[in-house]
Amino acid sequence: MRVLAVDLGGTHATCAAVEGGRILASETVSLPESLPLAEALEGIAAPLGKLHACSSAEGIGFGFCGLVDPNRARITSTNGKYTDAVDVDLTQWAREEFGLPLRLENDARLALLGEWYAGAARGETDVVMFTLGTGIGGVAMMDGRLLRGKHQQAGVLGGHTPVTLTGRRCTCGGVGCAESEAAGWSLPLVAEAWPGFSTSALASGKIDFENVFACAAQGDEIARQILDHCLKVWGAAAVAAIHAFDPDLLVYGGGVMKSAAVILPYLQEYVRQNAWTPWGTVRIAAAQLGNDAALIGATPLFEQELPVVR
Amino acid sequence: MRVLAVDLGGTHATCAAVEGGRILASETVSLPESLPLAEALEGIAAPLGKLHACSSAEGIGFGFCGLVDPNRARITSTNGKYTDAVDVDLTQWAREEFGLPLRLENDARLALLGEWYAGAARGETDVVMFTLGTGIGGVAMMDGRLLRGKHQQAGVLGGHTPVTLTGRRCTCGGVGCAESEAAGWSLPLVAEAWPGFSTSALASGKIDFENVFACAAQGDEIARQILDHCLKVWGAAAVAAIHAFDPDLLVYGGGVMKSAAVILPYLQEYVRQNAWTPWGTVRIAAAQLGNDAALIGATPLFEQELPVVR
Repeated sequence: MRVLAVDLGGTHATCAAVEGGRILASETVSLPESLPLAEALEGIAAPLGKLHACSSAEGIGFGFCGLVDPNRARITSTNGKYTDAVDVDLTQWAREEFGLPLRLENDARLALLGEWYAGAARGETDVVMFTLGTGIGGVAMMDGRLLRGKHQQAGVLGGHTPVTLTGRRCTCGGVGCAESEAAGWSLPLVAEAWPGFSTSALASGKIDFENVFACAAQGDEIARQILDHCLKVWGAAAVAAIHAFDPDLLVYGGGVMKSAAVILPYLQEYVRQNAWTPWGTVRIAAAQLGNDAALIGATPLFEQELPVVR
Repeated sequence: MRVLAVDLGGTHATCAAVEGGRILASETVSLPESLPLAEALEGIAAPLGKLHACSSAEGIGFGFCGLVDPNRARITSTNGKYTDAVDVDLTQWAREEFGLPLRLENDARLALLGEWYAGAARGETDVVMFTLGTGIGGVAMMDGRLLRGKHQQAGVLGGHTPVTLTGRRCTCGGVGCAESEAAGWSLPLVAEAWPGFSTSALASGKIDFENVFACAAQGDEIARQILDHCLKVWGAAAVAAIHAFDPDLLVYGGGVMKSAAVILPYLQEYVRQNAWTPWGTVRIAAAQLGNDAALIGATPLFEQELPVVR
């Protein structure tokens, strides 16, 4: 079946027409920060309408960067972004603008669904996918289905696993989450508070993962320590997910995976040493679909049994 | 239905005849440490046979203190105890000794099943139970069924959630697990390594939770710090479980719950502040069945759909 897909992040939205694991056409729109969701929807109506006109799609699969209730197709919590979102009726919007049914999922869940349908997790039934980027996504599939839970928020908060007792306060309200210890937004806070930071090359450059990996590779001791901290955080989150969901495979995506050559072998060894899995060893693999994963996930989202809200 | 129940721990086994949430008769046997499982089974054959003779039971529900595969009724990992256990065929033992079918579960899972059937989690569908004792059990039920997973070890390792990056090595192979930071066996190690330990009243007494709670209540600063550490560990494990399994309720059992009056209000407030649950607040409750929970869980273990291995 052919569907329209929307992947709405904090600073941009990508619209696409997708079918059978392929993107037929797509368009990305930049969005100003702090935009209300209602206005973001106005911004994507035109490109989505154009894709609709050319594709005869049967529905819209919508990925959102926050907690959602897929059964009601409502956003339940936004962690600071799109503060009007819980009041927006996306189903009504899709029907009135395009005459189409809509299904809503968390963007990280949708990316896992895409990797499962046509990427690194093809043929798997029990997978956790971590997305290492500005934030950290951590999403679980068990027995071939996304884990959703009583309030639709099971297995979707892997980035908010607490990994250290003495960590910083996270945007989610928690303390020492993986995301507040080793994600794009928290990295500058972690680095600037690191003992000896002013002696590091990081102090005179941009504090992002690209630079931390580069400085560490050049022998910068502070960058090496910070990188080691981040790797341990990702390793602890991996073990927590393995102990919770019992998967065969962990898939890693997100912008930080430009350094996959360092990250993946580290995590494979960390998991081998630290996870209690007498049946064998959980495999670690890179995501294959990049930014397309959530878009491609729109097709299996429609094919799964979840009731469509019309 | 009437069943025989066995709850096999590291140092003792309790055998019982149970029916409908009640214990009809029971007997506890002490077991020497480092006993092979084969010999432990010999030790419980007599009391179990006596219960069988008086009860006309339809099967044996067996709770074991390690990882198990309930589908095959085999023990898969023992974390140092009963090292012969993975080679023991409990199904054969039950058939030859008593002519009865047997079902096997992890003891912490069985305790949650008991609390769900006749205790603190009655009427609930989404519950996590933590057992704070010599070790820490942490077990999940979702949608009214025990979470088991691909290799039968999902939702059963809550005590082995990594909660600190700088923690000690756990018996499970991990680092900084909840259990290696705040359980009966690890408490002396944590306390003796605490800065200023020698100035504490703990240094001249027994290092157990009873004494830590008592000394902290009397104003001993080091005991207060250690207690605060343990409470934070339990709080972090609670948040990790909530973010993973999305429950309505956390149930706490185990010997450490003698200090429930301190622990439960702390955890309720910790969860209120740190868990990301826009739908409401996860409730915290004390277990109601004490050491009987796993025994009483033998009845619903037989009533659930799991295939019986004969």
